[in-house]
Amino acid sequence: MIGPEIERLIQLLSKLPGLGPRSARRAALHLMKRRDSLLIPLSEAMAAAGESIRACSVCGNLDSRDPCTVCSDHTRDRSVICVVEDAGDLWALERTRAFRGTYHVLGGLLSALQGVGPDDLNIGGLAERAKDPAVREIILALNATVDGQTTAHVVTDRLTESDVSVSRLAHGVPVGGELDYLDDGTLTAALKARRPL
Amino acid sequence: MIGPEIERLIQLLSKLPGLGPRSARRAALHLMKRRDSLLIPLSEAMAAAGESIRACSVCGNLDSRDPCTVCSDHTRDRSVICVVEDAGDLWALERTRAFRGTYHVLGGLLSALQGVGPDDLNIGGLAERAKDPAVREIILALNATVDGQTTAHVVTDRLTESDVSVSRLAHGVPVGGELDYLDDGTLTAALKARRPL
Repeated sequence: MIGPEIERLIQLLSKLPGLGPRSARRAALHLMKRRDSLLIPLSEAMAAAGESIRACSVCGNLDSRDPCTVCSDHTRDRSVICVVEDAGDLWALERTRAFRGTYHVLGGLLSALQGVGPDDLNIGGLAERAKDPAVREIILALNATVDGQTTAHVVTDRLTESDVSVSRLAHGVPVGGELDYLDDGTLTAALKARRPL
Repeated sequence: MIGPEIERLIQLLSKLPGLGPRSARRAALHLMKRRDSLLIPLSEAMAAAGESIRACSVCGNLDSRDPCTVCSDHTRDRSVICVVEDAGDLWALERTRAFRGTYHVLGGLLSALQGVGPDDLNIGGLAERAKDPAVREIILALNATVDGQTTAHVVTDRLTESDVSVSRLAHGVPVGGELDYLDDGTLTAALKARRPL
């Protein structure tokens, strides 16, 4: 005897990472008790994000501008491109304020299990960007997991034609760890101590 | 260098129960990767809920109808009113399909710590409903916590003028529960309330 509007809200909330059916019910109740302070603003923020957020045509970052805020910032160092799995990893690196270059978002990692091949990732766009003589270095900031390291090797292979040096994040990233779960200090140290491949 | 639309979305998502700043960022990324299948539908479901969901003027349940679906269902037994803390507890009872009476949502529990007094809860509305001669029994389905039991006592006091019997949910061993993991209070209550086989 729960109304269909509430049922649908609960069902959609339960698809968010970190929320199951029970916590989605709690979230729905929480939202409906705070209609004006949370439910309506969140609905509008989602609509605004859905309306305006697109993948940057240069680097693949998610932003309401195209090229994105990073790509159109003339103070950023265009000679260095940092390659990340997704926008969440880009945000993590931006939070450290330790990197002043540009990014390239692959849109995932190679994965035999999940059937993700090289053509599913934005590797071609990176190879194109690497042909620009202004680009000197490409930093692979990928997870220290099997999929991340496999992806790093494939990306490096595609960059051999270009006259760029390719580096990866220093060890300091715990083996098996994921970027989004690292503290900013570790990320900063790993970025500074990057080593040539 | 995260856009303001995304920042605002993350900030609002982090106010949901069960999501902190980090999991709100993951949820925002998850939403933006699934723009058409999740972000837009969830935004619309929230707007629809915010537009149509109101507290039932009879029982306080949240629904798009007033009186709510339960109160306007003529097959429900109007002689029994089950008193619950909030709509979430009402939903939990409805899921059991074990109760065919009507409800009364208090809108919280008395709490000295959080400054919730009797006037903040919908106790007056319950006392009014209890004056109806058709109402025979009121079941207090409140948490077995200090706040829940305090509220039960205050509600019972307010119902002494009415000619209704007041009951509470049984205390005992949860179905499927193991004795070894139960607290002493529950075991004692279960032992005192033992039933002949």
